[in-house]
Amino acid sequence: MKKDFTRYFYPNSEKVYVSGKLHDIRVAMRKVNLTDTVNIIDGKRVVRHNDPVYLYDTSGAFTDPDVEIDLDKGLPRMREAWVAARNDTEQLPEISSEYGRQRQADKSLDAIRFKHLHLPRRAKEGKEITQMYYARQGIITPEMEYVAIRENLQNEQLGIASHITPEFVRNEVACGRAIIPANINHPEAEPMIIGRNFAVKLNTNIGNSALSSGIEEEVDKAVWSCYWGGDTLMDLSTGDHIHETREWIIRNCPVPMGTVPIYQALEKVNGVAEDLTWAIYRDTLIEQCEQGVDYFTIHAGVLKAHAELVGERLTGIVSRGGSIMTKWCVSHNAENFLYTHFDEICEIVKRYDVALSLGDGMRPGSIHDANDRSQFLELDVLGELTEKAWAHNVQVIIEGPGHVPMQKIEENMERQLTSCHKAPFYTLGPLTTDIAPGYDHITSAIGAAQIAWLGTAMICYVTPKEHLGLPDREDVRNGVIAYKIAAHTADIAKGYPGATVRDDALSKARFEFRWKDQFNLSLDPERALAYYKESSVNDGEYCTMCGPNFCAMRISRSLKDCIK
Amino acid sequence: MKKDFTRYFYPNSEKVYVSGKLHDIRVAMRKVNLTDTVNIIDGKRVVRHNDPVYLYDTSGAFTDPDVEIDLDKGLPRMREAWVAARNDTEQLPEISSEYGRQRQADKSLDAIRFKHLHLPRRAKEGKEITQMYYARQGIITPEMEYVAIRENLQNEQLGIASHITPEFVRNEVACGRAIIPANINHPEAEPMIIGRNFAVKLNTNIGNSALSSGIEEEVDKAVWSCYWGGDTLMDLSTGDHIHETREWIIRNCPVPMGTVPIYQALEKVNGVAEDLTWAIYRDTLIEQCEQGVDYFTIHAGVLKAHAELVGERLTGIVSRGGSIMTKWCVSHNAENFLYTHFDEICEIVKRYDVALSLGDGMRPGSIHDANDRSQFLELDVLGELTEKAWAHNVQVIIEGPGHVPMQKIEENMERQLTSCHKAPFYTLGPLTTDIAPGYDHITSAIGAAQIAWLGTAMICYVTPKEHLGLPDREDVRNGVIAYKIAAHTADIAKGYPGATVRDDALSKARFEFRWKDQFNLSLDPERALAYYKESSVNDGEYCTMCGPNFCAMRISRSLKDCIK
Repeated sequence: MKKDFTRYFYPNSEKVYVSGKLHDIRVAMRKVNLTDTVNIIDGKRVVRHNDPVYLYDTSGAFTDPDVEIDLDKGLPRMREAWVAARNDTEQLPEISSEYGRQRQADKSLDAIRFKHLHLPRRAKEGKEITQMYYARQGIITPEMEYVAIRENLQNEQLGIASHITPEFVRNEVACGRAIIPANINHPEAEPMIIGRNFAVKLNTNIGNSALSSGIEEEVDKAVWSCYWGGDTLMDLSTGDHIHETREWIIRNCPVPMGTVPIYQALEKVNGVAEDLTWAIYRDTLIEQCEQGVDYFTIHAGVLKAHAELVGERLTGIVSRGGSIMTKWCVSHNAENFLYTHFDEICEIVKRYDVALSLGDGMRPGSIHDANDRSQFLELDVLGELTEKAWAHNVQVIIEGPGHVPMQKIEENMERQLTSCHKAPFYTLGPLTTDIAPGYDHITSAIGAAQIAWLGTAMICYVTPKEHLGLPDREDVRNGVIAYKIAAHTADIAKGYPGATVRDDALSKARFEFRWKDQFNLSLDPERALAYYKESSVNDGEYCTMCGPNFCAMRISRSLKDCIK
Repeated sequence: MKKDFTRYFYPNSEKVYVSGKLHDIRVAMRKVNLTDTVNIIDGKRVVRHNDPVYLYDTSGAFTDPDVEIDLDKGLPRMREAWVAARNDTEQLPEISSEYGRQRQADKSLDAIRFKHLHLPRRAKEGKEITQMYYARQGIITPEMEYVAIRENLQNEQLGIASHITPEFVRNEVACGRAIIPANINHPEAEPMIIGRNFAVKLNTNIGNSALSSGIEEEVDKAVWSCYWGGDTLMDLSTGDHIHETREWIIRNCPVPMGTVPIYQALEKVNGVAEDLTWAIYRDTLIEQCEQGVDYFTIHAGVLKAHAELVGERLTGIVSRGGSIMTKWCVSHNAENFLYTHFDEICEIVKRYDVALSLGDGMRPGSIHDANDRSQFLELDVLGELTEKAWAHNVQVIIEGPGHVPMQKIEENMERQLTSCHKAPFYTLGPLTTDIAPGYDHITSAIGAAQIAWLGTAMICYVTPKEHLGLPDREDVRNGVIAYKIAAHTADIAKGYPGATVRDDALSKARFEFRWKDQFNLSLDPERALAYYKESSVNDGEYCTMCGPNFCAMRISRSLKDCIK
């Protein structure tokens, strides 16, 4: 990777590690150190210490100054030893997919290839290796203990009671209410959990199309997505070199990574949906399982019978996978091969512990089409597939809309819970109005906050470029922060233990004019500081917003002295 | 005004006027013309016409190419004739406020003064002239008919049933559930209504502080705020030349304009809250009434007894007006003079039909302080003052928070309805988390959408610079659009008649790849087009987001042909 790679370290923060009690693991967190509060009381300088704040940290080794980062070699492979120790997987002598072998043999790709490849692992014949399987056996894996500590560290520091223990995590995974996406071939990723009884997570989408951007740009966006707070990452590339781009991203990705395998399958048949076959798709699944993709979006719920309902809609099908599979069904007059081969899909992915994200091919593309028949009929099919996957101990999440006006959001959550047996819900937004292209990170953050409060486990970000073009790094930033806001605000509303610790610490800093602490605790310290500096003429106890005489906080503080 | 002034015309749009039936009025609307839908069916080109879309338009004469705009002279004075025709007001021989006369006599201000001044009008002795008074007398004023047509034109075009008639408007104003802020000295403003049974409105704040920006910049922001969709405008200037800045803004402002008179009063006593007096404040009210301010924020609900509750808070008092008045109460050990002189305030403002916006001096400045005792005690006082104002036929709205986490929003709306007898609620956001300085237009749009859905009549925007500095024009844009989204999304959720017409037309255009129509119907055509162009390599049936093979809408449309 030639591109200059800028490492970013959060201001006044340290990387800290907490050891496990059950397993030999080290859970990374970000510790934000704060300055003291200084008051002048009766002419004396009174100094009060402010405790550091511990934050959930998605940035991986990139923000640990003690780890040398080399994009050409990839991140440290933390989970490799955990997987090996279970002794239920084996390293393969070569990669299994035909396509993967073709690419490996193609000398013309040498220039862009990730070079430090590792041979893939797979479950030994007859062995079950998914986190769901272990959980159902009563086994608390290192991954489960990791997420329990990760979701809970702040509370432990503060003595806040929390329901989250390793055993609680195990139980949630066992009954399918939560998943830990953790392909054994992506040992670089730090374990994380997606479930309604945990902090709300956010996914970011990156990826190039035939018309834009290269590998370096995608890796750059992936890493920055993690810096800003993305919990998972989907590579939706549809252009050339999908295979090679993905390898680069996975090897440098500290969070679970998802894909939509049908995109690559379609590229393999030159974009002609009718030419797709189960064999090509199957080989694509294996190719990606062995690269380390942690979850697959599978549009197996789009049925032939649903195609005719599309005529009732204002905006037809807006899911790429949904439109591809519907086109296939209609032109072949045959049932969706992802549906008919669903058990085989499970048989493949379970050998790598790849989770399934059941795609909503019929998600509404306009508020006009929200909550219509085709959407909810598909949801029922996804519920049926959920039970099938669970019979294989395959972890499942359910994808949701899309464009939904506020008054129709709750019905989405309720139906999903009923139809899909409480498998985690993972929604794209929803966008609450159609009239704001250029601002759809906002139309959708409004909907995402609400649906997450109601119980959606993960929200998929939308960037300002939605409907208009592919996001660049700055769009990724605006999308991630809007969704960090939505997710956090939902955690607060849900009463998630310790959710307001960061808010309270930041507000205290604000009230005490500890500007730097305020910025360091904020979601985007860089931008907050830049905006402040833009208009600041001093480092004093007010900003240009109100000026000295009109700073309410200043007057209010002087008042406190006054009253006491 | 020396500054180059750029007039903006919405793309492919016309200014249209609809005549009243009861009065000789012309209500301005924006008509967006759309291109035809062209399909090739069985090899034939089939053309279908798309009806134009009529939009509520806040931009006034600025977007009418037939009106010559001269900022030095101000906008056309449409309502002047209506007011005169009522024959219950008189033109004064000179302005009444002492301060206003001083400024007029000060030659050093000649260079920055607005020169085409008009003498103010005031109710004749013994005459009642507020819209509430007329409404209670059963009179439908031109202002009432204007807003009825304005809120309803789209529906009339489409044959959508709507509850909004001039009589409905009259009744809502009569019982205080809605207000039409319409100072007789601001005849340039187009009448608009604020009430829960009407479209949700949004206010923008502009104004300089001692540290920043000049008159030209403020006028520029004011005009652009109206272009982008601000329904009312508050001038919160606290720097030099407040009087002169305000005159320039009002004379060029096509929407109602509000102020917080205590800010100017404080400047008159050099920023020393303790030196404020009722006499200075009273003169300020009169000064501003005669300039044409349409509504005043009055922090009359901040009582002496509430001051001690501030100690319970994390962030004290964050309302500037609230902190000033509390400081005054504490240092004088006396009751808030705005509370003790409230009847006199009503006596003054009713002679100009200035509405009162009862300020929430105790609004929470952090989610920690949301819904606390001091906030709700003040709300009860505001309810008491509402009844006092109504006894004077003075129109009233109630200001609300602030920082409120999602799960505490509903209680705010419910308490406001109960405590304040259904007077319209007007909230600042609320911000649903404290951790995102630099992005508070988003944290607050989430809260604003929810509280507006629950019945808040007007939402006050927050810009990305909140907590950090004064907004520039681009911040105003981002703030206004975020709040247009929140307001519109609430209108849809409320089931406001015709609310989805624009969404449906835009989505239809999107699905049919009528890109220009899509952008022209969007909240910010300029930005949508710019984002599209940034990455567009063609004018064809897809964008860079998906490229040609992966455009779901393209596939979906081809599917429609396939199935038929």
